Amino acid sequence: MHSPSELLEHVEQAISEIQYPTYPGNLYEPISYIMSLGGKRVRPTMLLMAVDLFSGDIIKALPAAMAIETFHNFTLIHDDIMDNAPLRRGKQTVHEKWGTNTAILSGDVMMVEANKHITNVDVNILKPALDTFNATAQGVCEGQQLDMEFESRSDVSIREYIDMIRLKTAVLLGGAMKLGAIVAKAKPEEADLIYAFGENLGIAFQLQDDILDVFGDPEKFGKQIAGDIIANKKTYLLLKLQELVSAEDLTKLNEQFTNRNLEDKIERITSLYHHYKIRELATDQMKDYLNNAFKALNKIEIANQRKSELIKLAHELMSREN
Amino acid sequence: MHSPSELLEHVEQAISEIQYPTYPGNLYEPISYIMSLGGKRVRPTMLLMAVDLFSGDIIKALPAAMAIETFHNFTLIHDDIMDNAPLRRGKQTVHEKWGTNTAILSGDVMMVEANKHITNVDVNILKPALDTFNATAQGVCEGQQLDMEFESRSDVSIREYIDMIRLKTAVLLGGAMKLGAIVAKAKPEEADLIYAFGENLGIAFQLQDDILDVFGDPEKFGKQIAGDIIANKKTYLLLKLQELVSAEDLTKLNEQFTNRNLEDKIERITSLYHHYKIRELATDQMKDYLNNAFKALNKIEIANQRKSELIKLAHELMSREN
Repeated sequence: MHSPSELLEHVEQAISEIQYPTYPGNLYEPISYIMSLGGKRVRPTMLLMAVDLFSGDIIKALPAAMAIETFHNFTLIHDDIMDNAPLRRGKQTVHEKWGTNTAILSGDVMMVEANKHITNVDVNILKPALDTFNATAQGVCEGQQLDMEFESRSDVSIREYIDMIRLKTAVLLGGAMKLGAIVAKAKPEEADLIYAFGENLGIAFQLQDDILDVFGDPEKFGKQIAGDIIANKKTYLLLKLQELVSAEDLTKLNEQFTNRNLEDKIERITSLYHHYKIRELATDQMKDYLNNAFKALNKIEIANQRKSELIKLAHELMSREN
Repeated sequence: MHSPSELLEHVEQAISEIQYPTYPGNLYEPISYIMSLGGKRVRPTMLLMAVDLFSGDIIKALPAAMAIETFHNFTLIHDDIMDNAPLRRGKQTVHEKWGTNTAILSGDVMMVEANKHITNVDVNILKPALDTFNATAQGVCEGQQLDMEFESRSDVSIREYIDMIRLKTAVLLGGAMKLGAIVAKAKPEEADLIYAFGENLGIAFQLQDDILDVFGDPEKFGKQIAGDIIANKKTYLLLKLQELVSAEDLTKLNEQFTNRNLEDKIERITSLYHHYKIRELATDQMKDYLNNAFKALNKIEIANQRKSELIKLAHELMSREN
């Protein structure tokens, strides 16, 4: 068994060893740039944790880990174009630095790079690895599309929202862990169970993100507190509030969407969240998904001791402050 | 042996049978839309011609043909965004119809669809098929990047230009034919020869395109005649002219780049082309690449009779008027 920090070292080492072509420079520099901005490398690390769980070979799993991390970073380049985002991890986004056209095209060739990584897994598991990788990639695109569409819709249900974050965020974590299981030659039903663990954990993680946006410690959160409130973002919190709110409070809520006094807006919406106990309801929902994750993990017939790092990491992710 | 029109029927049939997911509709509708706009389906048809040349199974090659055609159409969606093009095959481009963000994302998921098609080839040739497919996709992205960069450069050499059209256009034709050879279990050196045939033919095809833009019959060309001249596009013709032109004529040429009287501009630049025999030089160059293509085809140790359709098609492509 390896600790998550040992696995993270393997991931960072492998990333640093990737050789991109050098011509045309403007096509490949954005790839090295976005890959070097860091991030927690949660997905490739959890992929390797799944390999470890099923007693697989970490080194043999690195192509799959690189495929997942490269694909994830490709989506960041294209998402940032779509969201018109100026900054990513505190640095200029690719389209700000190189222009939108190069950002589109560097993203495209980065998806090809991700595909090249995944073809480097053992040839006897190539087909199932590709099927999982492609299904994952497809889900992430669908989630991003739904996220964009929800911005202009006023009738998004909580069920739809959960399905959107499942696709946009959770499928990639589930897919990463399933790839780990496939590399480690786990049985298909075990691969599905670790997928369910990852997917449910991913949904819980995103719900926690929604909660932290409003109720996190500004000192520790790292992002602008209440950014979602300011942007009128349809998070779990807002959708739950809209579901429960009285007619009278709904009028008050709707007024806030155009309130230009942001401090006042944050205070009034947060106060509605308190009144309707939205934080508690969101936390309950988050815990439900966390429990679903643990139930799936529990069904995998492997000594509990081998599962301890995953359980620990899941709890850490849920009690994180940023 | 099948005739190209029989093979085209197989291609059209297979395209019509592709089932895309239906949700989110706005993500997948652009894919059906662009795939239904038609086009000559040159790449998948020539892929199947390569299969036929090596006595392979046409039906087994359809996943590779669909991968190539889907990838090609994906590049059209993203290229049209980058070129700010309003029309594609006489219809609204995807970004005009659905907006840029959806066009980016539909393109992305279309690349995933292409990847899914290629995984459906026989598992015992999956790895070489993927390697060829990914190398092809990568080349096409590199070609598009160079094409964009050349717009703002004044020192593009003919060697660089040929390399750009090789990557942007010819690699995809070569890659398609190599995939056909792989599916038909041709020997690696034969697969490389048919690749060389396709790549050289692709370069000749693009040079012919440059010539037709200026010297084609307006009745038959289908596009605006001299569109490249109007746009100051650095085609083979213009680069060759710039290489040969006297200092005095260079001044005249440079004046034309800002001439707003387009008829006058076309006439003056065309007259320089005539004076420096640019059409003849471009035609010679085109024929050189066509000869390279035939030399590669010649080296494949298969009865000439099996090569006849490819030779005929190559000649047809070179004597086309649109």
